[in-house]
Amino acid sequence: MKRLIVLLLMLPLAAAAQPMEWTEIFPGIWKGVAGRPEAYDLLTAAECEPFARSLERLERTPFPFDPAYVNAEVSDGNTYLRFPLERDEQIYGLGLNFQTVHQRGRILGLHVDHYGGRDNGRTHAPVPFYVSSAGYGVLVNSARYMTFYIGTAVRSDARDAPRARDRNTDSGWTSRPYSDAVEVYVPAEGVEVYLFSGGTPLGAVERYNLFCGGGALPPRWGLGFTQRVEKLSDAAQVVAEAEEFERRGYPLDFIGLEPGWQSRAYPCTFEWDTGRFPDPAGLTRQLLDRGVRLNLWMNPYVSPEASIYNDILPHTGTHTVWCGVVPDLNDPEAVRIWTDRLRQGQVDTGVSGYKIDEVDGYDHYLWPDVARFPSGTSADQMRQTYGVLAQKVTARLYRDAGMRTFGLVRASNAGANNMPYVLYNDYYSHPDFITALVNSGFCGVLWTPEVRSSKTAEEWLRRFQSVVFSPMAMINAWSSGTKPWSFPEVAGQVKYYAELRMMLMPYFYSEFARYRFEGTPPFRAMALEPGFRYDSRTEAGSRDLEDNPYLEAVTREVKDQYMAGKFLLVAPMFAGQTSRTVILPQGNWYNFYTGRYAGNGEEITVEPGLDFIPVYVRDGSVIPFMQPLLHSPGPDDKVDIEFRHYGNREGSYRLYDDDGTTFAYEDGLYSWRTATVSRNACGELTGSLSDPEEGKPNTVGRVTFRFMTRSE
Amino acid sequence: MKRLIVLLLMLPLAAAAQPMEWTEIFPGIWKGVAGRPEAYDLLTAAECEPFARSLERLERTPFPFDPAYVNAEVSDGNTYLRFPLERDEQIYGLGLNFQTVHQRGRILGLHVDHYGGRDNGRTHAPVPFYVSSAGYGVLVNSARYMTFYIGTAVRSDARDAPRARDRNTDSGWTSRPYSDAVEVYVPAEGVEVYLFSGGTPLGAVERYNLFCGGGALPPRWGLGFTQRVEKLSDAAQVVAEAEEFERRGYPLDFIGLEPGWQSRAYPCTFEWDTGRFPDPAGLTRQLLDRGVRLNLWMNPYVSPEASIYNDILPHTGTHTVWCGVVPDLNDPEAVRIWTDRLRQGQVDTGVSGYKIDEVDGYDHYLWPDVARFPSGTSADQMRQTYGVLAQKVTARLYRDAGMRTFGLVRASNAGANNMPYVLYNDYYSHPDFITALVNSGFCGVLWTPEVRSSKTAEEWLRRFQSVVFSPMAMINAWSSGTKPWSFPEVAGQVKYYAELRMMLMPYFYSEFARYRFEGTPPFRAMALEPGFRYDSRTEAGSRDLEDNPYLEAVTREVKDQYMAGKFLLVAPMFAGQTSRTVILPQGNWYNFYTGRYAGNGEEITVEPGLDFIPVYVRDGSVIPFMQPLLHSPGPDDKVDIEFRHYGNREGSYRLYDDDGTTFAYEDGLYSWRTATVSRNACGELTGSLSDPEEGKPNTVGRVTFRFMTRSE
Repeated sequence: MKRLIVLLLMLPLAAAAQPMEWTEIFPGIWKGVAGRPEAYDLLTAAECEPFARSLERLERTPFPFDPAYVNAEVSDGNTYLRFPLERDEQIYGLGLNFQTVHQRGRILGLHVDHYGGRDNGRTHAPVPFYVSSAGYGVLVNSARYMTFYIGTAVRSDARDAPRARDRNTDSGWTSRPYSDAVEVYVPAEGVEVYLFSGGTPLGAVERYNLFCGGGALPPRWGLGFTQRVEKLSDAAQVVAEAEEFERRGYPLDFIGLEPGWQSRAYPCTFEWDTGRFPDPAGLTRQLLDRGVRLNLWMNPYVSPEASIYNDILPHTGTHTVWCGVVPDLNDPEAVRIWTDRLRQGQVDTGVSGYKIDEVDGYDHYLWPDVARFPSGTSADQMRQTYGVLAQKVTARLYRDAGMRTFGLVRASNAGANNMPYVLYNDYYSHPDFITALVNSGFCGVLWTPEVRSSKTAEEWLRRFQSVVFSPMAMINAWSSGTKPWSFPEVAGQVKYYAELRMMLMPYFYSEFARYRFEGTPPFRAMALEPGFRYDSRTEAGSRDLEDNPYLEAVTREVKDQYMAGKFLLVAPMFAGQTSRTVILPQGNWYNFYTGRYAGNGEEITVEPGLDFIPVYVRDGSVIPFMQPLLHSPGPDDKVDIEFRHYGNREGSYRLYDDDGTTFAYEDGLYSWRTATVSRNACGELTGSLSDPEEGKPNTVGRVTFRFMTRSE
Repeated sequence: MKRLIVLLLMLPLAAAAQPMEWTEIFPGIWKGVAGRPEAYDLLTAAECEPFARSLERLERTPFPFDPAYVNAEVSDGNTYLRFPLERDEQIYGLGLNFQTVHQRGRILGLHVDHYGGRDNGRTHAPVPFYVSSAGYGVLVNSARYMTFYIGTAVRSDARDAPRARDRNTDSGWTSRPYSDAVEVYVPAEGVEVYLFSGGTPLGAVERYNLFCGGGALPPRWGLGFTQRVEKLSDAAQVVAEAEEFERRGYPLDFIGLEPGWQSRAYPCTFEWDTGRFPDPAGLTRQLLDRGVRLNLWMNPYVSPEASIYNDILPHTGTHTVWCGVVPDLNDPEAVRIWTDRLRQGQVDTGVSGYKIDEVDGYDHYLWPDVARFPSGTSADQMRQTYGVLAQKVTARLYRDAGMRTFGLVRASNAGANNMPYVLYNDYYSHPDFITALVNSGFCGVLWTPEVRSSKTAEEWLRRFQSVVFSPMAMINAWSSGTKPWSFPEVAGQVKYYAELRMMLMPYFYSEFARYRFEGTPPFRAMALEPGFRYDSRTEAGSRDLEDNPYLEAVTREVKDQYMAGKFLLVAPMFAGQTSRTVILPQGNWYNFYTGRYAGNGEEITVEPGLDFIPVYVRDGSVIPFMQPLLHSPGPDDKVDIEFRHYGNREGSYRLYDDDGTTFAYEDGLYSWRTATVSRNACGELTGSLSDPEEGKPNTVGRVTFRFMTRSE
C-alpha cells in the first residue's frame, strides 16, 4: 500500500519557486520531485525495478528530517537542492571513493572516470547516493554531472550559521566555517530525489539497495577463485594453465582471457582470433569438463574490421574511441547487433561472462562532451551511464540464456545494484583498494582489490589475503603472468587462503543472497555495523570505555578495516606492516582462526605475523564452512558443512541454497535453512540445522558444529 | 568601414542545424554567432570597447581556414563548436597555464580557480582564447564553464581521420589517435565566437588585445619596485620601511599593506584599523612626499561588522565567504556602496591601488555553483567573471579620480586586457612562475613571478633576477618579512638588478605603451617571436642549421625563456642550476650585459655565474636606459636617456612619453619619439633622437648613444 504525503515547500525566489512533493512509495522511502525531471536518468538507464516483495515488508520509519529544511529551486536551466545537516552528523557514500570515508566537508563533482588519485567525484562509480550517520540516505537521480557540496557551502540565511571572525587577530578564525547543509547542483531543469529512512545507516543502505532491485546474486562459481592469463595466451596455454592449477592443488573456477582472444582489440571485433583460438567451442567445453569457466575481456568500441561494423555504424555516436565506433546502448538496434555478436560463439558455447573494460574514462580516450548519439542521449548522460548500460545488456544476454553470469566492469552507477558485475581498476594501491571496498558498501556496487603483481613475497601474500575477503578473489595477471605459487616462500600461505576462500563459499553465497533479498551489502564499512559509532555525542559525558568505547575513534576515518558478511571483521595488513590497530565495535569479539577472545568496543593492536590477515568474529556467530574443493560444487553435488560457532552467546545462521547457476531461484526454487546454536539444559552449547524444505534445492551433505571458543 | 561576409554552414543534424554567420567587424577580425548567445558574456562583463583607432588601420588578412570546417550545433541546452586543425599546427593560450605551453592534445575545462598544480583549465585566468601557430586566434565569448578538446576528440566523419590499429599485434597502436579539430563544449544555448587572423601568431594576439580595448598602460611608478610589508605592520613600521629602502639605496615606488590595515579582514570592513593606522591620510601624504605610494590588500567579502554591511546586504549573493557577504558586482547598488567605501579615506587620499585577493578560488571558500545573485548572474558566470568585475569597478574608481592605478588581482578573464592589474598567486614554483609569464602573453593578462621568501641566497637572487623582467617587480613579504638585503651575501647583486629595473623604465614604459596602442604583449612566449618556429616542416628537407635552425627545438615546449619587450630575450636561472640552454631565434643575438655575439638561430649553453640572469638582445636593437633613480620620475622631471645599441645592423626605437600618471594621454597628450641608429658615410654607427613634438609631454633630458657591440 502506498501512502501519499504532500509537503509543500515555499521556495525563496518567486520566479523559480516550485513546490516539492514528497510521496512515500514504500515504507520509509519517499520520492520527491523538483522542477521537471528529465526522461532519462540513472534509474531509467538501469531499468531497475524495486524489489517490492522485500520492501513492502519493512517497518515504517519517520521522515528523516524536518521537510521545511529541504529546499529545491530551478533556475537558469539548473536545479539547486539543499538538505539539512545536524552538528553531529557524518555523511558517507557518494560513490567509489578510494581515500576517504567521511564525506562531510568535501565537494564532489560526480563524473564517471578512471580514478585519478584524488577523491574529487571522478571515479568509476560516482553514485549520487549518500548515507547519513543519522540513519537515512538520499539519492539524487540524475544522469548529469552533478556537484555535491557536503557541508561546505554557507548561506547567509543559514539556520545554524557560523559567525564571522577577524583573521587579523582571532586565532579561532577558520578557512572553512561551519555549514549546516548538503547542497546539490544539478545541471537540468528538474530531478527526482529519493529519501531512505532506515533507522540506522545500514537500514538506509538496505532500503536503497532493495529499491534498486536488491543486490546481485552471483552464480556459486563466481565466488570461487579466478585467474586472468597473459594477453596473447592461446588455447593450449589456457588449458595448460587450468591443468597446472589442478596439478598443484590450487582452486580455480574461472579463467579470464585478455584482448588476445579477439582478432582485433582496442577497438574490438568481438570475434575469436582463429590463430590463437582455432576451436573456441571446443576449448570452452574442455575447460567446463574440468570445472573451469571462461571470462572474456572486451571494450565496447567496434573496430572497422569487425563483421558488425557496417550494420552498427548508423547506431553509434559521432565520436570514436581508438578509431572504433561507440555503440549507442540506448539504441535498440545497436544493442541487438552487438549482443547478437556476443551471443554467437561466446555466450551460446558456455563462455561465463565478460570483463567490460574502458567504459569509465579517461577523457582523452572516451567520447568528448560534444559527442552526439542517435538515441538523443547526451554525451554526459552517456558517460554517466555507459557502464550501467553495458552491464544491463550483457546481463540480459545471460538471463535470456538462463545462466547467471559474474563479470567485471570499469564503471557503474546508481540502479546497477542488481547487476552481476564487480568493479576493478588499474590504480594499484593496496590501502586505497581496501578503502574502496569499505566505500563500495555505501553505494550498491561490488569492488575487487585485485592481485596483479607484487615486488615482494610479503606484498603478494598481503594482497592475496585481502582479496580472499572480497566479492571476487582474482589474480589479474594479464601483464605480469604471476601465478599463486610464483613466490615459493609464501606459496603455502597463498594456498591456505585460496582454500579458505573455497571453505567460506557457503557463507559468502548466503551473504550475497542476503544482499539480493534483503539489500545488506556483503562487504561494507564499519560505520554500517551495529555498535560502531562515528560520533560519541549520543553517549556524551561518559568516558567509561564500556559505556562509550569510541572516545578515541570518533574523530578519525576508519578506512582500513571492514565487514565481510554478517560476522567477519577483516583488518588487512599492508606490505611493510608488522602490527596494526583494529577497532572492535561494542560486544565481545573473537579471533577468527583461534576462537580466542580479542576485545570488546576497543582499539586493539595486533601482530598477526606474515601468515595471517587479522579477522575477528562477533560473539554468537555461526559460520558455515565447506571442504576446500578446487571448484565450486554443482547443483547436484552434496557438500558437507561445518558450522563454526564463536564466543559464548547463543546464535544462529540462515544458510541459503539454490541450484547455484540458473534463475530458478526467482521462481521460488531456493531455501533458507537455519543453523541454531543454543545452550542445552546443562548449559552446554549445541547446534542444529533446520530440515530442508520439500521440493527446494538442497546441496547440504553432512552437517557438523564446531565450537571455536573454549569456555573461559 | 565594416564588411559583411555571410557564410552559411550546413550543420549535420537537422534538428539542431543552425546556420552560422561570420561578419568581418575589423580588418582580420570576424564575429560568428552560434544559436542564441546569452546576454551576459565575458566581453559584456568586462565592458571593453575595441580600440577601433588602431584596429581600423590594420591590414586585411584572409579568413584563417576553410569556413566549411567550422561547425556549430546547439542541442540539449548546449552549444558544440568545432574548429579545424592541420597536421603541423600548434595551439597556444587558453589561459594562464603554469606547466605547459603547447596545448594541442590537451583537454581544458576552463574554470576560474586557484592553481592546483595541474594545467587542467582551472586557473586564475582561464581565458577562452587560443592562438594557432598558423597565425590566427579564436575567442569563445562565454562566461560559462567551457571544455576545450584541443586536438583530442576524433569524429567518425573526421576529414583527416586516423585509422584503427590492433593493439594485440600492432606496435604502432597509440592510445591517442590523431585528431584534426578543436572542439568546444559550451553549456549555453548559443555563443559568440571571434576569429583573429593575424598573419602571424603575434599578429593574432595583437588583434585580440586591441579588440579587447588594447593592453593596460600602468602609471610610470607601477613599473618601479614594490615591497609588501608584514600583515600586521602599523603606520610607523610602514614609514620606517620606506626610510630604510631610501637609506640603503634600494629603489621603491610603492608599498603594499596586507590585511592588517583593516579593522577586520577575511571578511573585510574596508575600513582602516585606527589602532595601527590612526591617521591614514597623513601616512599617505608622508609617503607620497618620499615618492612612495600605498597599495591596499583586500578581498571583496563584506564583514557583518563593516559599516556598509546593512546597506549592501540586499545586493549580495545567497552564500557567504568566510561568513562575509558577496557583493553582486553586476548590481549597480552593490558597486556604488562598495566603491564609495573604498573612495572615502582611501582613493581620495592618494592610496594608489588595491591587491584584490581571493576572487579566484578555491571551491571550499567561494560561493558554490548553487549560489544565486540578485542581478540574475548565475553562480558559474559570477565565478568566471568576478575578478574581471572587481578590476573593472575599482579601475573606474581611479579613472573617476583622474589617476592611473596599477594593482594586483587573483583572477581575470577575456576582456580585462585593458585593466591595470597584474595576476599573482600562492603557488611558488620558480620555473612554473616563468611558464606562467610565457603564457600570459597569449591571453591578454599580466603576471608577476613574485619573490616571497627563499631558502637560500642563491634562490633569492635567482627569483629576484627574473621578477625584474616582469610586469611588476615585487617582493611579497607579508608573511616572511624578507627585504631585498635580507641575504647579505647577494645584497649587492639584488641592488644591481633593482637598479637595472629602474634603468629600464623608459624601455618597459614604452613597451607597455605598445601594448596599449598596438596590442603587443610586453612579456610573451618565444612562439610569438619572428624567426622562432614551433615546427620546421615549412622548411622541410633542409637540415642545414642556417636554413632550418629549429631542427632540434621543434618538438619540445620552450617554457623557460621569454621575450621582455621588443628586444630582450630573458632566460632565467633556477636555484641549483649552474648552466642552461637557450634557444635563439633566427638572426644574430648579443649578450645584454657585454654586447658580445651570442649566436644565431641555435641552441646555446650558457654558464652565467650567480651574478647574472642570461639576457640576449637582437641585432640592431636600440634600448633606452635612464639613471637608476630610487623612485620613478614625476611628470615634470627630466630624465637623461642612454640608448644602447646592440649588434651591427642599423635599428631604431620608438620611445613613448606622457605625464606618467593621468589619463591625459587618452586625449592625445603623449608622444612617440624615434631613436635611430644608422651608419654614416664612413660606415660608423651613429645615433639620433627625433625632436619632441610641440605641446606634448617631454620628460627626456640629455640623450646619449652607446654602442654595446664592438665591430668584429
